[in-house]
Amino acid sequence: MKPVIVLIEPQMGENIGAAARAMLNCGIDELRIVNPRDGWPNERADAMSSGALEKMPPVQVYNTTAEALTDCHYAYATTARPRDMVKPVLDAKQAADDCHERTAKGQKCAYLFGPERAGLSNEDVALSHAIITIPVNPDFSSLNLGQGVLLCAYEWFQKGYEPPSSVDPDTLPAPHVELDNLYNRLEDELRAGHFFRTQEMQPTVMRNLKNMLSRAEMTSQEVNTFHGIITSLTGKKNK
Amino acid sequence: MKPVIVLIEPQMGENIGAAARAMLNCGIDELRIVNPRDGWPNERADAMSSGALEKMPPVQVYNTTAEALTDCHYAYATTARPRDMVKPVLDAKQAADDCHERTAKGQKCAYLFGPERAGLSNEDVALSHAIITIPVNPDFSSLNLGQGVLLCAYEWFQKGYEPPSSVDPDTLPAPHVELDNLYNRLEDELRAGHFFRTQEMQPTVMRNLKNMLSRAEMTSQEVNTFHGIITSLTGKKNK
Repeated sequence: MKPVIVLIEPQMGENIGAAARAMLNCGIDELRIVNPRDGWPNERADAMSSGALEKMPPVQVYNTTAEALTDCHYAYATTARPRDMVKPVLDAKQAADDCHERTAKGQKCAYLFGPERAGLSNEDVALSHAIITIPVNPDFSSLNLGQGVLLCAYEWFQKGYEPPSSVDPDTLPAPHVELDNLYNRLEDELRAGHFFRTQEMQPTVMRNLKNMLSRAEMTSQEVNTFHGIITSLTGKKNK
Repeated sequence: MKPVIVLIEPQMGENIGAAARAMLNCGIDELRIVNPRDGWPNERADAMSSGALEKMPPVQVYNTTAEALTDCHYAYATTARPRDMVKPVLDAKQAADDCHERTAKGQKCAYLFGPERAGLSNEDVALSHAIITIPVNPDFSSLNLGQGVLLCAYEWFQKGYEPPSSVDPDTLPAPHVELDNLYNRLEDELRAGHFFRTQEMQPTVMRNLKNMLSRAEMTSQEVNTFHGIITSLTGKKNK
């Protein structure tokens, strides 16, 4: 079960569209709107949603916040301003964790967003169970509606997702034997080209070169490419 | 030291402005642009930035990505598409952690964003050190430029920030003695009002009521309010 996004008295169709796009980017597709200023449907919202509104179930429109929340068990009020109310205050990540826990217990959760300028009314905050304050730069903290929705939805989506682990075998560093062959060939060619000023310096210089090249973590294919470079520069094929 | 945001050949001024706003929301203020389609400065970018472009140091404009990166030690390429290149692949949070670690070692880091439709060119990905893939809904994964910048900047900003802990003393639950007084008064008034059908049921019913009321975690002020409710309903002041 996914949370519901509730936009309360949104003014700009563009912002509704951006919110819809952000929701669907993060796999959330139930959008409810309370008293949209310019009515519904809204062409600007459609354009700005980049197709999200077409792919989602139809948006539901309500006259009051209470009606929009009838089937919801738990509501998060997004507001930058701390209010004079005793309520849990969560950041977007904590809210996402809390939402997943509640969902697992069969609770339907709603994220409430107020109108662009004024934000949520005290009445709407009062009927919510917790406050979400998204941590941003205190000197420039005004988030646009679509971006506020995005950050809440993004944190919700991250919860079930596994971070990338680069286990593609094609990306494994070359086995040591291949590097060793490369280093030996390189050393032979460098000696032939009088790269080492003295014979005494040769081990130290080679150690430094190996150290440098090992940091590149070359794949087998890249080791072959390096052999090609040596062949090209020396005019001598690899034995 | 903060990372640099580099927008490569952005097309829409609105997106540049949204990116600037998102950056500054997250405390990042160095924006570089490579070959903006409509030149620079750009009125639409100014309007969409909600004042961010005025508060940031002047945007620097370059002809090539390489020029934009001259003083940077490490570059992250944001791209949804996996490329046929061996490079670390990070999500936005992993990149933020990596960026903070590199910054602590004196490395200047850059986040690269390609043009709106095409995304980063293979050439620009090749000169980056790592790839950032922002995890989103695979069925609707196209993020707008400003939202991509926001998610990367948001993750960067979260790193140094402490989640809210509600230690405001005004929000502490009332000490037990106050609850006990309230429960005792309530029990007295309920008995007087013949609320308990039988005397045997009284302890169980009271236990259920206490259990319910304790979940509200009332503050001292709210306990006083509850006393006021009892006074109002019974017409009898608290002794």
